Amino acid sequence: MAKAFVFSLCLLLVFNGCLAARQSQLSPQNQCQLNQLQAREPDNRIQAEAGQIETWNFNQEDFQCAGVAASRITIQRNGLHLPSYSNAPQLIYIVQGRGVLGAVFSGCPETFEESQQSSQQGRQQEQEQERQQQQQGEQGRQQGQQEQQQERQGRQQGRQQQEEGRQQEQQQGQQGRPQQQQQFRQFDRHQKTRRIREGDVVAIPAGVAYWSYNDGDQELVAVNLFHVSSDHNQLDQNPRKFYLAGNPENEFNQQGQSQPRQQGEQGRPGQHQQPFGRPRQQEQQGSGNNVFSGFNTQLLAQALNVNEETARNLQGQNDNRNQIIRVRGNLDFVQPPRGRQEREHEERQQEQLQQERQQQGGQLMANGLEETFCSLRLKENIGNPERADIFSPRAGRISTLNSHNLPILRFLRLSAERGFFYRNGIYSPHWNVNAHSVVYVIRGNARVQVVNENGDAILDQEVQQGQLFIVPQNHGVIQQAGNQGFEYFAFKTEENAFINTLAGRTSFLRALPDEVLANAYQISREQARQLKYNRQETIALSSSQQRRAVV
Amino acid sequence: MAKAFVFSLCLLLVFNGCLAARQSQLSPQNQCQLNQLQAREPDNRIQAEAGQIETWNFNQEDFQCAGVAASRITIQRNGLHLPSYSNAPQLIYIVQGRGVLGAVFSGCPETFEESQQSSQQGRQQEQEQERQQQQQGEQGRQQGQQEQQQERQGRQQGRQQQEEGRQQEQQQGQQGRPQQQQQFRQFDRHQKTRRIREGDVVAIPAGVAYWSYNDGDQELVAVNLFHVSSDHNQLDQNPRKFYLAGNPENEFNQQGQSQPRQQGEQGRPGQHQQPFGRPRQQEQQGSGNNVFSGFNTQLLAQALNVNEETARNLQGQNDNRNQIIRVRGNLDFVQPPRGRQEREHEERQQEQLQQERQQQGGQLMANGLEETFCSLRLKENIGNPERADIFSPRAGRISTLNSHNLPILRFLRLSAERGFFYRNGIYSPHWNVNAHSVVYVIRGNARVQVVNENGDAILDQEVQQGQLFIVPQNHGVIQQAGNQGFEYFAFKTEENAFINTLAGRTSFLRALPDEVLANAYQISREQARQLKYNRQETIALSSSQQRRAVV
Amino acid sequence: MAKAFVFSLCLLLVFNGCLAARQSQLSPQNQCQLNQLQAREPDNRIQAEAGQIETWNFNQEDFQCAGVAASRITIQRNGLHLPSYSNAPQLIYIVQGRGVLGAVFSGCPETFEESQQSSQQGRQQEQEQERQQQQQGEQGRQQGQQEQQQERQGRQQGRQQQEEGRQQEQQQGQQGRPQQQQQFRQFDRHQKTRRIREGDVVAIPAGVAYWSYNDGDQELVAVNLFHVSSDHNQLDQNPRKFYLAGNPENEFNQQGQSQPRQQGEQGRPGQHQQPFGRPRQQEQQGSGNNVFSGFNTQLLAQALNVNEETARNLQGQNDNRNQIIRVRGNLDFVQPPRGRQEREHEERQQEQLQQERQQQGGQLMANGLEETFCSLRLKENIGNPERADIFSPRAGRISTLNSHNLPILRFLRLSAERGFFYRNGIYSPHWNVNAHSVVYVIRGNARVQVVNENGDAILDQEVQQGQLFIVPQNHGVIQQAGNQGFEYFAFKTEENAFINTLAGRTSFLRALPDEVLANAYQISREQARQLKYNRQETIALSSSQQRRAVV
Repeated sequence: MAKAFVFSLCLLLVFNGCLAARQSQLSPQNQCQLNQLQAREPDNRIQAEAGQIETWNFNQEDFQCAGVAASRITIQRNGLHLPSYSNAPQLIYIVQGRGVLGAVFSGCPETFEESQQSSQQGRQQEQEQERQQQQQGEQGRQQGQQEQQQERQGRQQGRQQQEEGRQQEQQQGQQGRPQQQQQFRQFDRHQKTRRIREGDVVAIPAGVAYWSYNDGDQELVAVNLFHVSSDHNQLDQNPRKFYLAGNPENEFNQQGQSQPRQQGEQGRPGQHQQPFGRPRQQEQQGSGNNVFSGFNTQLLAQALNVNEETARNLQGQNDNRNQIIRVRGNLDFVQPPRGRQEREHEERQQEQLQQERQQQGGQLMANGLEETFCSLRLKENIGNPERADIFSPRAGRISTLNSHNLPILRFLRLSAERGFFYRNGIYSPHWNVNAHSVVYVIRGNARVQVVNENGDAILDQEVQQGQLFIVPQNHGVIQQAGNQGFEYFAFKTEENAFINTLAGRTSFLRALPDEVLANAYQISREQARQLKYNRQETIALSSSQQRRAVV
Repeated sequence: MAKAFVFSLCLLLVFNGCLAARQSQLSPQNQCQLNQLQAREPDNRIQAEAGQIETWNFNQEDFQCAGVAASRITIQRNGLHLPSYSNAPQLIYIVQGRGVLGAVFSGCPETFEESQQSSQQGRQQEQEQERQQQQQGEQGRQQGQQEQQQERQGRQQGRQQQEEGRQQEQQQGQQGRPQQQQQFRQFDRHQKTRRIREGDVVAIPAGVAYWSYNDGDQELVAVNLFHVSSDHNQLDQNPRKFYLAGNPENEFNQQGQSQPRQQGEQGRPGQHQQPFGRPRQQEQQGSGNNVFSGFNTQLLAQALNVNEETARNLQGQNDNRNQIIRVRGNLDFVQPPRGRQEREHEERQQEQLQQERQQQGGQLMANGLEETFCSLRLKENIGNPERADIFSPRAGRISTLNSHNLPILRFLRLSAERGFFYRNGIYSPHWNVNAHSVVYVIRGNARVQVVNENGDAILDQEVQQGQLFIVPQNHGVIQQAGNQGFEYFAFKTEENAFINTLAGRTSFLRALPDEVLANAYQISREQARQLKYNRQETIALSSSQQRRAVV
Repeated sequence: MAKAFVFSLCLLLVFNGCLAARQSQLSPQNQCQLNQLQAREPDNRIQAEAGQIETWNFNQEDFQCAGVAASRITIQRNGLHLPSYSNAPQLIYIVQGRGVLGAVFSGCPETFEESQQSSQQGRQQEQEQERQQQQQGEQGRQQGQQEQQQERQGRQQGRQQQEEGRQQEQQQGQQGRPQQQQQFRQFDRHQKTRRIREGDVVAIPAGVAYWSYNDGDQELVAVNLFHVSSDHNQLDQNPRKFYLAGNPENEFNQQGQSQPRQQGEQGRPGQHQQPFGRPRQQEQQGSGNNVFSGFNTQLLAQALNVNEETARNLQGQNDNRNQIIRVRGNLDFVQPPRGRQEREHEERQQEQLQQERQQQGGQLMANGLEETFCSLRLKENIGNPERADIFSPRAGRISTLNSHNLPILRFLRLSAERGFFYRNGIYSPHWNVNAHSVVYVIRGNARVQVVNENGDAILDQEVQQGQLFIVPQNHGVIQQAGNQGFEYFAFKTEENAFINTLAGRTSFLRALPDEVLANAYQISREQARQLKYNRQETIALSSSQQRRAVV
């Protein structure tokens, strides 16, 4: 019996020690044991005051192999997703709803009044503000109350002016605005915010903080892809979210891979599903989980030149709302008018950017922070059917997003694709030449098969709405939409990902001489010709067997 | 005895568990345990119907450290190496023979008639073909037989015209060709093929499929280097070959590192040497090993719009010819005229490419697939002695290939070198500054010494024809040709690999002040001067001890 | 008891086998277990004849995670640090002293006479030298003695001329210099050397050899950072130093990670501190440790065309001075005049370089070795207070070095920063957006806190002069200078590293709308306004709590 004990202890040690070692080796650099892929729903959920964050377990072999992590964020009406940044560049696809997103670039100017109001007013405002700040500096805190009052009035007036429209503002002459008005202008000034809506793709570089707010009338749902194996991430392959406010739970704290919290929290081995609204032990400890929390409160207060009470608020102590909070009343800040104007504004910005970039010889970030990030376009809508790059009336349509239509993607080395296949429509069998593809099923269903280098189907599944699956680089894949059609969004881990089709007018087969086909496949030349010319569609293939002459 | 059992079981577990763990850590990112290098012949062989594929075990520490894999492919006369692609960019050196290579870029036009015949004819042809295809679409399959007959006649005629030469074609006026001729033109149309011959280097990007065919009168032998640790490979460090036809064996299935075949094949632990013509168990299982094999036959047939029988042929079921097959009769397809014209054609293409690239600011792939890959030059011959970049009449010559003479190498981040040293000629001791060097011995023999950072010779060997060895980055190396001379080809894992010599006119020693040498090596100033000036050759050093005044 | 034996053997095996496995997994690609950081002094020291080399243990988790290694080199007066190169690009910061550094680029011309004397003289000299070399070739060795004598005289004369100054030289007409003088000019010719002094940063690419010499009147102290996880290093993550002279000890031979020496040296497990002046076992073995040592002596002699005795001297046999040697007398070589002229010279070079680079479209190394490395500027002084990029009269100043002011850093993908904070001055809390920061404390002390993604302080320490600590990418950090002020140098692992501040005029907080702050931190709008506007300084924050109006 003692021997048995020795033996099992031995076993235990071996499996504790070595298997742990093996587990952490599944990084893409080491080994991709892709014997079996699976389309999966998220397997971890964090409940917050005004929404929830669901994550896919990034320790799964397919995620490890592709070097990605993914999450789905649901923000309720009037919910604010607290500012955070990540160690990996990410693409966000807005599955549903409307809202506002603010990305913060330290050192960039707080442009949000100027860009929406007449520049003349903006200039006056700035001078005024400059003056006010000096007064504030000289007169100290006592003036605070009064200023705030002024500002509230100014804000109301400012909003009225906005609604009167831009035309009127431009009509106002240089000196047309009475001096008095300026005293009641709104005071708030901040960096650019961006409207987001269903179909938008937002690109966020590693280390860049962003927040978002649902000001629509339904839930705002977004799917995020983190490219953890990107060159921009110099830490390890674990996705890490750094929150700058609140007392958030770790979204990716799965399977004990991430560091255990320092205080007041036991490791939760094997517990993937977080209990919602669990008693937060941090509260008793008086320690939050955001970046401010780790600083000495006194030192932080000194650095910010505020009192320690405010510093403690930054540190998120006694905050149990988690990372998505409910805003008291409506969130009230300077916002751009929606729609056409915004689009024109962005187009102008983009033109300017491209001119700059041509002068720079295509070198992004070459001229420092100010000339690039501050004016960088971060989003593009690919939900509009008119925007389709590939369209087959009887099969479906595909829209692609790459560095040509969203230049920041060149820097991030990511691209994306959104597709809608009609019932039984077939996505031509193909392989991804230079990227992994991470596919999220927006709506509908499809039969998907993925094939490895040995000719084995490592994925053969009916994928459903809300699931996500990975098609590794170079692996063959075929997809056929189900009865409900198939609507998906695909993240690709290269700036201009492209595919090589195995059927259709641009397929591999078409590129080969007839006799090579005939010999390779042991078929007649007639059959070879059929292989080459029986399909006139390119990527979106209709399912009917009849020949068509559509070119 | 029971104790002994426990003990050995323990040991077993430890070595099974932990050593396996250690083994898979030898990726370049982790550790290079380069205590001993060795020049080796391939240690795995796959016999196919019309040739063989030999591979070097990529799990060896030196290969793992350098992040490369290598194979040698022998194609018999009239043999066709089936189309395949790899997860790693590769360089192919043609050691012997002649043939044709076709690289497939999905979406690129099928240009092979136009580029070899007059453009006027090509245009007419295209229109005709367009018309024929529409007819085909309208009239369906019945016409197939007839078309094929027409086409055969057209092909014969086409070949006659080719032999009449290009000049005559150009003399023919716009309308000079009778309408009747066009009906008998050859029909086949496919992507560019490239003639290959001894001394050619061909660059194939990751994920790009290619096939090759031996139409010469001797065996076609090629050595392939796969740069698996390239950024272009987002999978793991294992080389993977994806075949698009046939029922191939896994060329790199060594030491159980690759995934075992899903069906019908047991793991073959430790069995490096494949039995030739082994009974293929796939045949009984009815499952092939190419990419098509993994798709559902019915779905594949639907996608291709062919019958299921043809789809099954694509899947390579019941095919036991392996990856190199014997062509029935001669492989008959549109081919470019050989020699001077081809060269001129390519040069024109290259000029155009360079102009484009200058306009683009040197950004390859920046403008999408069509403008780059489709017109990209993939090969360059470095076998011609006249082409030598370094030549020493009494020692030997070296030709280099980098992104300047083959621009795609900038994109692939690879370069190459071919050298021929006369008997006793010395390759100056040197180190590779920015690349690993993987050297294949084409002919002859040499004494090679490689030195690590501790001053230890980790390779000291008489290398022979057919062997391959790795000189890791920064390691010192010296080579002296043997009695038969020394002819080699070196793959380098950086686009413009360069070396730093330790002897010769451009050596490290020459760059140092006399007194630094005198003090560092505890020698007199006179000796220091000798170190600097006793060798007037640069890299290829003659072995005689006499001083020479050649500068 | 036997059982106990089995058990402990088991344990032993498990811990030997598996823990070793775990240890080597701490590469950045795998896992960053950064639960605890620490500012540390070097923990390994090698004593040499004229100085010492101290290294930080690169196997520590923080170094492994950041992919860096570091050393501090102290060269005594008249000491020569023998030529070496490394597998990683490095930045060298000169903490103290003056000296000369020579970087060797194989194949670049030996330009050092021309650039320091009048070009007219230089031209004559070159012609003369050419002639002399030919004579040497023709007349062989007998002339050696005589030449050397001439040269010594020439050298003395040359130095006098230098001291007479450059103006005079330029006044001398084309033919003004008597023929006789030219016969007595100094003979030595070598590649460019560069003067180094306190405050200089020198960038050395991977695989590029350099040597340095202390010709000042105090110790020359330098701190080196090696970016081992750089793309330029294709070997593993271990820093490797390849010496080209002497019989050096392995500076980074810690914890048995590096390969044990082949001969005559036992593994020294756990022995971090090297005994100074230990009996060198190599002497008995007759084998050195530099790159030449590993070559066959006869073959080396043949390659260099020198006798075997000289070859043996190159191999460093019987040399026990280690890597820093004392020069006999003064090291006597061609040197540039110091100061203003040098600066002007470099500025001219830089202008030229930038013009070239604009023409090249910003593509470094695109045109081969000759046009880039040979004329590349390698150093820049950031010690001068006037050079500050950020300055706050009551807090301190910061100078940054990136690819804009030292273009080679774009190629190396490194940047740097030097800062001086006055007593109690605060470096604004911030995070590194795109780089790790490796900080060396030059003088003074500071309180430093580093915070991870869970809000835990993983570093909270009073850092002292001579210590080094790592601030990982994206981790929050705050620093407050102690009573003695705080002077530091920070290496950053990205070409244009930038930070995002959490306090100050450009902070994250300032970019957010008031109401977002109010809701996120559960504070009033007034408090939110204070958070945004209470600090007018940007990065260097003064510690006093009073409000200031300085903008």
